[in-house]
Amino acid sequence: MPPIAVHIEIPDWVTAMAPQGAVFPDAEARMRLAVALADANVARGGGPFGAAVVERYSGRLVAAGVNRVLADGLSIAHAEVVAMSLAQQRLGSFDLSAVGDYELVTSAEPCVQCFGALFWSGVRGVVCAARSPDAEAVGFDEGPKPADWAKLLNARGIAVTTDVLRQEAAAVLRQYAALGGNIYNPGPPNP
Amino acid sequence: MPPIAVHIEIPDWVTAMAPQGAVFPDAEARMRLAVALADANVARGGGPFGAAVVERYSGRLVAAGVNRVLADGLSIAHAEVVAMSLAQQRLGSFDLSAVGDYELVTSAEPCVQCFGALFWSGVRGVVCAARSPDAEAVGFDEGPKPADWAKLLNARGIAVTTDVLRQEAAAVLRQYAALGGNIYNPGPPNP
Repeated sequence: MPPIAVHIEIPDWVTAMAPQGAVFPDAEARMRLAVALADANVARGGGPFGAAVVERYSGRLVAAGVNRVLADGLSIAHAEVVAMSLAQQRLGSFDLSAVGDYELVTSAEPCVQCFGALFWSGVRGVVCAARSPDAEAVGFDEGPKPADWAKLLNARGIAVTTDVLRQEAAAVLRQYAALGGNIYNPGPPNP
Repeated sequence: MPPIAVHIEIPDWVTAMAPQGAVFPDAEARMRLAVALADANVARGGGPFGAAVVERYSGRLVAAGVNRVLADGLSIAHAEVVAMSLAQQRLGSFDLSAVGDYELVTSAEPCVQCFGALFWSGVRGVVCAARSPDAEAVGFDEGPKPADWAKLLNARGIAVTTDVLRQEAAAVLRQYAALGGNIYNPGPPNP
């Protein structure tokens, strides 16, 4: 009997676009990668979200992820969780802060789930492109994330940067909606 | 080259203790399983947390999980996320509410991460044993979970039940601490 496991697959094309060790020197270069991953995921039927974990001072890439909710059938598999989890398994530490100074670069602000996941990941920063209203404008539900979410992360030593290539990332969200993409998490279920 | 993936392994002993399809008729029977999984995980060096996803009306088990943070090197791998993710992959749906009426039974109240993950999981209920102060009393950090967390879940059609076998679950937490177990997430990192 093979061991039972939960699998989140990282497609080969993600690894090709975002090879471990490649260097993305500044915030815009890092975000250009995250947005390109989101865009490429849409072209393959996935959700319009991409993310990467990079070393803060060098921009060296550790891991990249895309939304795998539909492909893997897992609600947890948002791009942020995929990238942070792959980074942790690659570096052999459930706490990235124990092995270096890393940040998460994501094509959209974290939803309530990814907000919660950030606290235990060990990233020291999160850099965002599209804002929650951009995702909500095309029908995605961000959940009851606290209004002061950035402050709550700051209080735990996680720096927050917003609006890096916001328009480019919002355009990918609109493109997904225009193509008739599946809007999962479309608001409260019927009780 | 093998496909790259994030893996959360479900140990054989978990599957043996909690076979898919077994029936746990009431809240206490379901929680006795979650607490027994937590206790057994401690005996194997894991975190003191167990969880299960069951069909609400029948008590039929879909999936069980234990804390795999240390074993798999993943901060996301709390027992609740492991059980909900395995249930989703077994039932072939990232939204459990689309395929039935399921609840999460967990040996401890959700932390900020698992609170966030509940919204997109599709469970219609969450049943908890130990309270957050019980976990905090032995050094675990629950993060900035909103004070009205249960109300926020209720508003999304997720029923919350607390204090089922609370003392039994709290005893497992104290046992873990007494054995010198690794308290990961021990509070805010130094900025």
